[in-house]
Amino acid sequence: MPENRSSRPEGTWRPRSDRARQVADVLRQQIADGAFGSGMLPDERVLVAEFATTRNAVRDALDVLRAEGLIVRRRGVGTQVVARKYGHGLHRLSGLAETLHEQGTVVNDVRVAAPMRPPAAVAARLGIDPYTPVVYLERLRLLGDRPLSLDMTYLAADIGTPLLAEDLRHHDVFALIEQTSGSRLGAAELAIQAVNADARTAEVLEIDEGAAVFAVERLTRLACGRPVDLEMIRIRGDRLTLHGDLHRSR
Amino acid sequence: MPENRSSRPEGTWRPRSDRARQVADVLRQQIADGAFGSGMLPDERVLVAEFATTRNAVRDALDVLRAEGLIVRRRGVGTQVVARKYGHGLHRLSGLAETLHEQGTVVNDVRVAAPMRPPAAVAARLGIDPYTPVVYLERLRLLGDRPLSLDMTYLAADIGTPLLAEDLRHHDVFALIEQTSGSRLGAAELAIQAVNADARTAEVLEIDEGAAVFAVERLTRLACGRPVDLEMIRIRGDRLTLHGDLHRSR
Repeated sequence: MPENRSSRPEGTWRPRSDRARQVADVLRQQIADGAFGSGMLPDERVLVAEFATTRNAVRDALDVLRAEGLIVRRRGVGTQVVARKYGHGLHRLSGLAETLHEQGTVVNDVRVAAPMRPPAAVAARLGIDPYTPVVYLERLRLLGDRPLSLDMTYLAADIGTPLLAEDLRHHDVFALIEQTSGSRLGAAELAIQAVNADARTAEVLEIDEGAAVFAVERLTRLACGRPVDLEMIRIRGDRLTLHGDLHRSR
Repeated sequence: MPENRSSRPEGTWRPRSDRARQVADVLRQQIADGAFGSGMLPDERVLVAEFATTRNAVRDALDVLRAEGLIVRRRGVGTQVVARKYGHGLHRLSGLAETLHEQGTVVNDVRVAAPMRPPAAVAARLGIDPYTPVVYLERLRLLGDRPLSLDMTYLAADIGTPLLAEDLRHHDVFALIEQTSGSRLGAAELAIQAVNADARTAEVLEIDEGAAVFAVERLTRLACGRPVDLEMIRIRGDRLTLHGDLHRSR
């Protein structure tokens, strides 16, 4: 089929696994973008034509996406998207419930909310003495009744203590801080890692041990520049995509 | 030991695995930040005191970090950081070699560089007709002679074709585009996912199958707004941390 040949990179023989990865990457992004409105992927033959590749490469690509838990394949029905991904913007500092309010209700299962003495590394990030207590929050965050992330939050005592009397189950910490302190939040520094979930985290997030998760550290400051909120967040990789814009010159 | 008790969140019994995760998260971030200049972690007893926790929780935390390939523990020597992570900023649109030039030399193993007919989804992102060929590049990017990422790049033909005559092994695509086209790059849209590496990607990146990797889609535009460069990038999670700033009001 000359049609197929002309669509491969010219003059290059490529192993099937490389072609399969190329197909899987495009489909993964389409799934993340919600491109398949019906929730059904096109038929295998359509994908073979669309990617101008072989049926085996398409099957391998679908196997990769199935192993990631994004799709299920049902005989006689077709290939269905099962894991809708939510988008979280890196454009603006905002809480999870604020960001996802159009996509569902965020509920926080508050596992710990209490004062504690911070580890020295945490105290240093918050710019406080290690013997000064902080308020520690540990919340399992659910969207549509399913776990989305596990957040460990260390708050400067004057900012965190008033939150212990608030409704942490239904409100973002960001909104509560601004409300109880009367101060606006300013900026946050973010560090994002991709890690494999350890056994216990996997159990809490209801994913397989070893599943890919985002490990995010976020240090949030008041508008005056004072750091008050250090969070270590583990986010299910199969449920969230992070979106951002980059500019060449700034 | 009252010292230890007072440092746990008050009035809360917590399973050892939760305390271990808390310790692991702080240490992981310190490793990513290069906090252990000597490459050695403090002695177990020091960590027990620092985190005011039990020796078993510290050991579990170190097991988690070891399973992630970040540290090795040697009897009689101690705990050593083995996987230094590189930082890549989300502050500005820049190529890998540009960003990491202070940390080492980026070399690109060019696996494919040729014209091809794009999949319809790729053509749509680039705003071109699906029967218009693009230039496809597939590069394994090495930093310090070890794989860092696998980049699949689709370039509009007029932008990509001149690059085929350039030294893709030693130069970022961004720099080459600006040089050969005479146009400045403008902004890019970024979507970041955390996924488990499939078998073949793992082999190419020299990691275990299933290891957590970033899957990044980046659509880059010329300063005039025209989209010209769509990249699907798989980055080793154990070698890179993404850094960004967020602002509450913009």
